[in-house]
Amino acid sequence: MDLKEAILQRRSIRNYLDQAVPKEMIHELIQAAIWAPSGSNAQPWAFSVIEDREELERLSEEIKAFLLQNIDNMPNLQQYRKTLANPAYRIFYNAPCLLTIYAKYQSGPNAVGDCYIASQNVMLAAHAMGLGSCFCGFALHYLNLPDVKKRYGVAEENQAVAPVMLGYPAVIPPPPQRREPEIIFWK
Amino acid sequence: MDLKEAILQRRSIRNYLDQAVPKEMIHELIQAAIWAPSGSNAQPWAFSVIEDREELERLSEEIKAFLLQNIDNMPNLQQYRKTLANPAYRIFYNAPCLLTIYAKYQSGPNAVGDCYIASQNVMLAAHAMGLGSCFCGFALHYLNLPDVKKRYGVAEENQAVAPVMLGYPAVIPPPPQRREPEIIFWK
Repeated sequence: MDLKEAILQRRSIRNYLDQAVPKEMIHELIQAAIWAPSGSNAQPWAFSVIEDREELERLSEEIKAFLLQNIDNMPNLQQYRKTLANPAYRIFYNAPCLLTIYAKYQSGPNAVGDCYIASQNVMLAAHAMGLGSCFCGFALHYLNLPDVKKRYGVAEENQAVAPVMLGYPAVIPPPPQRREPEIIFWK
Repeated sequence: MDLKEAILQRRSIRNYLDQAVPKEMIHELIQAAIWAPSGSNAQPWAFSVIEDREELERLSEEIKAFLLQNIDNMPNLQQYRKTLANPAYRIFYNAPCLLTIYAKYQSGPNAVGDCYIASQNVMLAAHAMGLGSCFCGFALHYLNLPDVKKRYGVAEENQAVAPVMLGYPAVIPPPPQRREPEIIFWK
């Protein structure tokens, strides 16, 4: 697929088919991720893949409960109180796969930034492969709790940066409108 | 250009031709940036463009001096002490253009992450347009000093996240080797 087409046509997908993502596609997406640039070529990332639907459902419920319990201390999440309190709401929108990129803090000058950058390769490549994806900001706090890292076999010093859900899209939404960007040309 | 080709063939360019980046290309790159996804579609970004070679040279010298002065408090930068002390070293490698993406902190749940993600669209699109680019981590601290934001007309509450130098490549380096990624499949 053409790059420009991928950039313009990729949508965040919030409705998935009940169909697993083939393992070879997951490996291909991780390859796309690791060809992102990284500060001093540190490649400061590690990947976790959860493909168990029941586990994702459980995780979604746990995250909702955790965020609602702590929302008073999370100014950026105030606006999502109702969404999170809705029993029908699912953090991962029934996506069959969650690919999370973790920053390896020990290595590289800008590990967190590098992992975000790598995640866009994943989301673009997913689109080109006919997969939908959505960056799941809601999962960030919870995936970084020590017990949750342990549960998924993630080293304690790694930081969850980019949880990306993946699956075949059931509904592709229209593109959300873009505002005119604010650009300052210096001289 | 094919997306996969762009992901695999884009290199971080550290040697540029003495040739300006056409204004319409800069606008096209910013369009690529704003079609990145953002948390709750907040589009929490602003852009600054510096195309004045003398200003970029001055900025490079200032950043080197600033980092060397503060390097004892920047554990991630220890390894660059010699590089930064080298009078011939130029932060922007003589690139004729610096495009910086700033996070608008007031808007959106994950403004910083969104700006990193958008920067990868810029770097991929630049490659497809025959331009070289390189993410400039060294510039981050300095661009966030209040006086420096003022100098470039950037609102105080915005945070410099992704300084990307741009220009026509003089030398395209071979691809740095990638390590086998660490992947944990859960179950």
